[in-house]
Amino acid sequence: MVEKTVDIKPASRVFVCGGGHQGVSMAAHLALEGVDVTLWNRSQDNIQAVIDTGQIECTGVISGVAEIEKASSDLSEVVSDFVFVATPSSAHKDIARLLAPFAHGDMVVVLSPGRTFGALEFSKTLAEEGVEDLPHIAETQTIVHTCRRGEGNRTSILALKQDVMIAALEPSDISYVLARMPAFLRRYYIEAPSVIVTSLSNVGMVLHCAPVLMNIGWVETPYVGFKHYYEGISPSVARFLEKVDAERVAVAKALGYDVETTTAWLRRTYNSTGSNLYECIRTTDAYKEIYAPSSLQHRYLLEDVPNGLVPLEYAATHCGVDTPHITMVIDLACAVLDRDFRAEGRKYL
Amino acid sequence: MVEKTVDIKPASRVFVCGGGHQGVSMAAHLALEGVDVTLWNRSQDNIQAVIDTGQIECTGVISGVAEIEKASSDLSEVVSDFVFVATPSSAHKDIARLLAPFAHGDMVVVLSPGRTFGALEFSKTLAEEGVEDLPHIAETQTIVHTCRRGEGNRTSILALKQDVMIAALEPSDISYVLARMPAFLRRYYIEAPSVIVTSLSNVGMVLHCAPVLMNIGWVETPYVGFKHYYEGISPSVARFLEKVDAERVAVAKALGYDVETTTAWLRRTYNSTGSNLYECIRTTDAYKEIYAPSSLQHRYLLEDVPNGLVPLEYAATHCGVDTPHITMVIDLACAVLDRDFRAEGRKYL
Repeated sequence: MVEKTVDIKPASRVFVCGGGHQGVSMAAHLALEGVDVTLWNRSQDNIQAVIDTGQIECTGVISGVAEIEKASSDLSEVVSDFVFVATPSSAHKDIARLLAPFAHGDMVVVLSPGRTFGALEFSKTLAEEGVEDLPHIAETQTIVHTCRRGEGNRTSILALKQDVMIAALEPSDISYVLARMPAFLRRYYIEAPSVIVTSLSNVGMVLHCAPVLMNIGWVETPYVGFKHYYEGISPSVARFLEKVDAERVAVAKALGYDVETTTAWLRRTYNSTGSNLYECIRTTDAYKEIYAPSSLQHRYLLEDVPNGLVPLEYAATHCGVDTPHITMVIDLACAVLDRDFRAEGRKYL
Repeated sequence: MVEKTVDIKPASRVFVCGGGHQGVSMAAHLALEGVDVTLWNRSQDNIQAVIDTGQIECTGVISGVAEIEKASSDLSEVVSDFVFVATPSSAHKDIARLLAPFAHGDMVVVLSPGRTFGALEFSKTLAEEGVEDLPHIAETQTIVHTCRRGEGNRTSILALKQDVMIAALEPSDISYVLARMPAFLRRYYIEAPSVIVTSLSNVGMVLHCAPVLMNIGWVETPYVGFKHYYEGISPSVARFLEKVDAERVAVAKALGYDVETTTAWLRRTYNSTGSNLYECIRTTDAYKEIYAPSSLQHRYLLEDVPNGLVPLEYAATHCGVDTPHITMVIDLACAVLDRDFRAEGRKYL
């Protein structure tokens, strides 16, 4: 057992799990800041160009050719002790299982983002896999990099978010997690008191699920694309979302924490203005060009229902908060997609 | 008390309640067939041209200038003993109250259509108003005339439906109702064994409510109209409607009656083809040009939820049939429109 309270140095190597938009951008950013980076992706094809060249070409607010120590689809070849999980939250459980043989008490795992109760799920999955000395597990509310992968080994970082909330599953662990984090990266995060706050501040589940379900015909009509936020969230949809959002805030309150309303979050993050959710969305420039999914088989439902609304409803049940609107959205998603999202979803507290 | 079993003659005068598309078209059709017709509409403006001229100019499959005996917004001036109620079903209760002072046991009232449990509501409302000798009350499944009112006193009858189901609240009354009906009109109707069948064969509540609620953003986006059936009822919406429809059929079954599925009804009424509801709708020419509402304040919700789905759910509860999808649609309508449709709606059996 190492002594954790003194002489904790930032990790010199970071293992990035996931070669999508965020993973490749995070890997490039870390490497360009002088950190040794390894990169993993389940499907090798997606990172073949990084494997072949050992490089990621990064443009945008961070630019340069980043040298990657190793990229692989075999986790055992690239794992190290500071793990940055940059996959969709639906992969968290599988990654915990793959990581279990390498996990130990000095390891740090940051789920970026955790969605809802990701850190809890990760911890429980490691324990189920027989890991006794659990890593320090943390989760973030959202991602730092606004980015898009290009072809091959290219990525573009369009913006960096400030003040992204981060919390550790064991609240006292957060100082250790931040101490081990590469120094340049710390400035993008602010500490939250609990994963209850990061998990229940996941506004994606509010802004993604119901608007898709309230525009199914539009989503499935192939010759008419529409803007998810600007058109899909019409006045009546926004009023419904405010009811869902109020239930989310009430659950956090019942668990002892204050979380922002989605309206307040929009005002803080995007300087949106207006007296209600509809008006705030209409004044959010970042949403102007975001198109809606063209199919219901999309993370706005497949990820945000089981890893957002389902754990939120589960927590509500356990603390006696009434959430009829959240229940309605889950029921509708289950019925429309013919899936039992409650059975698949995260039910922890 | 008249003897009802012999010498029953068709009514020579018919009182048409409601001066909308159907009322004006029905009045014209009756008058052109030689029946004395009176016409009522709550708002006088809507029928002012008929009041002024005493005529309705009818084009389409029925054409000619129909002479109307009297049109008025004062029911006492135009009421007679064969009453054809051609209003939206949301007006049935008010009309029953207005008609109560004139109601008697030899009167015939036909609700066209009853929507769900209209005849039951009409009868109970008359009784509540103190009518002891109740009229013969019947309801139809849908309307005979496919029609559109024009400006002033013009109307256009585009098509006439055959085999529209009609049932009397007291099953034995149906022969009296049909005997009193103008002879030319009888051919458009077929007898149903019970108002359970006409009421639960109301497919509007299946085809109207959920598709609007599953396209709210599209409905409320003012610069993009869309076709309710052809675009709003996409594959996933149609699959959801099949679940709603199966619950409707199961409720009828539990009450002792077989009703058609909406798919079977489309095949019979419109010669639609296909193996499922989506395919049948795509092959229904009559639906090709029907646009969706441009607001949620529309009869597809305001009428079809309280006078269709609510009584259906109520009947289901009483016969122990599980209707989670119907409940979901009602809940969603209540939440989105901030109305308690269950409190406003018909709850009879």
